[in-house]
Amino acid sequence: MKIIKVNLKEKSYDIIISDGTITGSAGIIKKSGLGNYAYIITHRSIKDRYGRLLEKTLKKNGIDFKFKLLPETEKTKSIHTAIRVIEDIVKTGKSKKIFLVAFGGGVIGDLTGFVASIYKRGIPYIQVPTTLLAQVDASIGGKTAVDLKEAKNIIGAFYQPRLVLSDISLLQSLDARQMRAGLAEIIKYGIIKDKILFDFLAQNRKNILAKNKKALEFIIARSSSIKARIVEKDEKEEKGLRTILNFGHTFAHAIESGSGYRKYNHGEAVAIGMVCALEMSHRLKILDKHKLEKATTLIRSYGLPIKIKGVALKDILTPLYYDKKFIGKRTRFVLVKDIGRAVTKENIPIPLARRIIADRFK
Amino acid sequence: MKIIKVNLKEKSYDIIISDGTITGSAGIIKKSGLGNYAYIITHRSIKDRYGRLLEKTLKKNGIDFKFKLLPETEKTKSIHTAIRVIEDIVKTGKSKKIFLVAFGGGVIGDLTGFVASIYKRGIPYIQVPTTLLAQVDASIGGKTAVDLKEAKNIIGAFYQPRLVLSDISLLQSLDARQMRAGLAEIIKYGIIKDKILFDFLAQNRKNILAKNKKALEFIIARSSSIKARIVEKDEKEEKGLRTILNFGHTFAHAIESGSGYRKYNHGEAVAIGMVCALEMSHRLKILDKHKLEKATTLIRSYGLPIKIKGVALKDILTPLYYDKKFIGKRTRFVLVKDIGRAVTKENIPIPLARRIIADRFK
Repeated sequence: MKIIKVNLKEKSYDIIISDGTITGSAGIIKKSGLGNYAYIITHRSIKDRYGRLLEKTLKKNGIDFKFKLLPETEKTKSIHTAIRVIEDIVKTGKSKKIFLVAFGGGVIGDLTGFVASIYKRGIPYIQVPTTLLAQVDASIGGKTAVDLKEAKNIIGAFYQPRLVLSDISLLQSLDARQMRAGLAEIIKYGIIKDKILFDFLAQNRKNILAKNKKALEFIIARSSSIKARIVEKDEKEEKGLRTILNFGHTFAHAIESGSGYRKYNHGEAVAIGMVCALEMSHRLKILDKHKLEKATTLIRSYGLPIKIKGVALKDILTPLYYDKKFIGKRTRFVLVKDIGRAVTKENIPIPLARRIIADRFK
Repeated sequence: MKIIKVNLKEKSYDIIISDGTITGSAGIIKKSGLGNYAYIITHRSIKDRYGRLLEKTLKKNGIDFKFKLLPETEKTKSIHTAIRVIEDIVKTGKSKKIFLVAFGGGVIGDLTGFVASIYKRGIPYIQVPTTLLAQVDASIGGKTAVDLKEAKNIIGAFYQPRLVLSDISLLQSLDARQMRAGLAEIIKYGIIKDKILFDFLAQNRKNILAKNKKALEFIIARSSSIKARIVEKDEKEEKGLRTILNFGHTFAHAIESGSGYRKYNHGEAVAIGMVCALEMSHRLKILDKHKLEKATTLIRSYGLPIKIKGVALKDILTPLYYDKKFIGKRTRFVLVKDIGRAVTKENIPIPLARRIIADRFK
């Protein structure tokens, strides 16, 4: 079992990573004094598969609970769903001391965190991420958001969870594509911040893809720890430090948006986006060719895409110009100087970004 | 001109109180670096009367702007209005550096602060309160909220403004009832925390009711300062210190709710609520009869109600039991030991509260 503390003064919390975290966290939830009623937000498939584990643990803690099932679509992450959930929480009982449990992937985590942040001006919530991607990314750092029809993530809050329970045993049911989505973000941590993690990923691919629990615990803990340290230094993305977590993401968002959020999932888009950012680093002469190839090879070796197919180039270029990072005409990209060393560069010529994307079609 | 600083580390801000604050604050807004586009949320009547003042000042600051007019009803303070406003902000322009201006009373202030807190995970906003009540209460302290259909203030956030511009000249158009609503809260500050303010209110009633600007500046500054000091010590109502601001409010909410938010405005309900809380303090033998009468006399002398009329007793008692302060069956009331000295008392017998309300009908 690995425990990683996120140090944010009175908002500090633990990330607990192990094979069997949920079952093993009987005392932890009670000790945290979150409340006497767990309002668990999840999908039916997750409840059917793992609901019992959570139920048992909550009962042992003497905590009453309710499962709120939401549809398994991107639309679930909308302000309208958030309001319907709050209406249901109001009905659930005013005299209970309610806390929320985000029991699912990133969509559930983002929605639950946002609801917790605005219900009664903030109630406690915990993250119980059920995907590899959510375990290493969305569940940590309190960046919550929901969508408006025409604007993704436009409504949200910085609101930290009180506990993150990352249970590796939940990952056994993920398919290869879902695993790869998480691995793309893990590779990202290696490239931007952690050569040891990068080398571990290169040397233990078979083990990792076979879901060896020791190997998974290592890469999840390593990734969570990197994210925790960055969040501690720049909780609200005000100092530019948290920006490096966006490595590959400017391109990725354009690719996701340009393909109507259908062709590529987030991890796959991030994989291609990272290759673009690596290419850009190389063309701007800050990353040598050998390292560019080494990183690209690692990404490809995990079965992640490095080329764009089945999307029109112009559909990808349009959202690129509308990216938040280009507000006020400043173009900012996260690049790498070396494996494990990211840098932020401003005033990158847009035509270069355009050429790099075009090259991904070849 | 009085400047009161609210010290909240990186979230600190100034409250500027004077006759002509808006006109005089030309440089201040620009210096604050809030953005280059002011999205002003207000009502038509306020824009018609005072919009020009704000326009002129913003133009002098080189800040572009837009007025968003919302209906002058309690319904404006709903989550649905908040979403519609955000949809409009999205349309207003993604490349502008937008900040919000709450230009109105408490409803506008609460809604605007909430919208600012959740749009893009928080953008800056300033308060330009146009009622006496908003100047001394809602505009300070960052307690924002909107309503769901069946639950008032159930959705919200603690989110501080970047500046509060309290312009006394705007109060000239308020009618006597609106003035009294603010005066009820000002009297509250005197009773719970400030004997000097209390005595000033007792000795300068005529001047105050005649809207003498010096007198208004004194009582607004004094009240704002009390609220600022309490907010500094307990920004998020976690330490119980901010609770004393709720003096009279448990009763007031029951009275407002029981009368369907029609018969009494907030200030009037607070006036009756304060008399109830004073009575309770006396019956629990912590406040002597002379001081009870002195405080009650002051409230009545300002034309505020001290008795309940035209509402059914049972309609007031029901909401009392549902008040947030009774969660977990703990009854907590803010009481006074002396003029200027509030205390919080727990485990007050509910039948006592019931008898005190019943006596207000006599």
